[in-house]
Amino acid sequence: MPNPTAAMLVIGDEILSGRTKDTNTNYLACALTEAAIDLKEARVVSDEHDRIAEAVRVLSKRYDHVFTSGGIGPTHDDITADAIGAAFGVKVDIRDDARDLLAAHYKRQGMEFNDARKRMARIPDGAMLIDNPVSIAPGFSIGNVHVMAGVPTVFHAMVATVLATLTGGQPLLSETLRVYIGEGDVAGPLGILAEANQDVSLGSYPFQKDGIYGSNLVVRGTDPLRLKAVIGQLAKVLGVEHE
Amino acid sequence: MPNPTAAMLVIGDEILSGRTKDTNTNYLACALTEAAIDLKEARVVSDEHDRIAEAVRVLSKRYDHVFTSGGIGPTHDDITADAIGAAFGVKVDIRDDARDLLAAHYKRQGMEFNDARKRMARIPDGAMLIDNPVSIAPGFSIGNVHVMAGVPTVFHAMVATVLATLTGGQPLLSETLRVYIGEGDVAGPLGILAEANQDVSLGSYPFQKDGIYGSNLVVRGTDPLRLKAVIGQLAKVLGVEHE
Repeated sequence: MPNPTAAMLVIGDEILSGRTKDTNTNYLACALTEAAIDLKEARVVSDEHDRIAEAVRVLSKRYDHVFTSGGIGPTHDDITADAIGAAFGVKVDIRDDARDLLAAHYKRQGMEFNDARKRMARIPDGAMLIDNPVSIAPGFSIGNVHVMAGVPTVFHAMVATVLATLTGGQPLLSETLRVYIGEGDVAGPLGILAEANQDVSLGSYPFQKDGIYGSNLVVRGTDPLRLKAVIGQLAKVLGVEHE
Repeated sequence: MPNPTAAMLVIGDEILSGRTKDTNTNYLACALTEAAIDLKEARVVSDEHDRIAEAVRVLSKRYDHVFTSGGIGPTHDDITADAIGAAFGVKVDIRDDARDLLAAHYKRQGMEFNDARKRMARIPDGAMLIDNPVSIAPGFSIGNVHVMAGVPTVFHAMVATVLATLTGGQPLLSETLRVYIGEGDVAGPLGILAEANQDVSLGSYPFQKDGIYGSNLVVRGTDPLRLKAVIGQLAKVLGVEHE
């Protein structure tokens, strides 16, 4: 059975202006690879209602899961909940359970639970809350879309929560052969082996540092014996040692 | 006149598996902001012909410029040139000028100019080469799509070459007010000022470190006097000092 598929949608002008570096996509990519879910596409869109809603519509139809990051804070440009509501054609309003969580949190902190903060309790109808152990304001899952915070520590915690509820396929394993041979010289043999071993995937990643160059050749698949076998073939055809 | 718009398309399984962190999008975002070109969207797609071609078709229609990174090396999964050719409905073949550049390079290096390396001279009909001062294999521009290498040093050099040929609008300037006030407390006044000053854009970026927290409030626009005026209003309404 093929692995489930997924897409990432990063929401925020600050990523597109270059002010903030998106680290959430790489974090999710690593977590999904470990969970045997294939990340097939990632997008970054601006804080514009129609852009967010359009991307959610397209990606949620095309892939098994969609993960979003950003736009669920208290400010005027935090419009992700409304855009997701529009994409699914459901109402968005302050929800009692989310409001109660936040009210209790700000009471403990001795801070005012003002209108801006109440925006963070706006949840599309029919969504399930995603726990936020870091700063309380919840994410939510609706249909196959998981809506999470942009702040990396919160995003990481929410990914852990969501992944625990999803069932992946078989874990994807990898074996790497590091060779001191340029990519252009390994490309020929690599292509032939890729053709001959279609149950695994082969990739090559060049490196160059301090005048030394070469390629990391990575074999990925679900059967550890097959990975070892293909790495062995690679080492043999390239005439390099492999333990 | 509004600024020209742009999209970034990152091509590569290694980004989606999490193995490699994409730094090119942030680099391009910063370079475009400086050049007064608005990056409106970014996508990452896998090394699949149809996915690349589809993304190029959509993005090149929607935005003034499209920048791609990745998939122009010598290996079997470097299929960007063919996918771009398909998107534009033109033939792709080894081109004399690109082949001559590469042949001379490998001759100087004392390396074989083999079939894998010749793949890097495959250029869609009608494209213009983009110089690669780092490792010679050229990128190319076709229509409004600029096809560049994934290796960051090469990508940076190619971006500089392409940007020199494009005309941006007015440079986007920014002013930042750093306040030791939580985002939830600045959100209300910020929203009101955003509404009242639609010729600039206002954003807030929370920080939290060593128990100290607050927000960087950023005003962006093209008129430096307007930025100063809005920062002054912000400081006044929040009751903070501003030099």
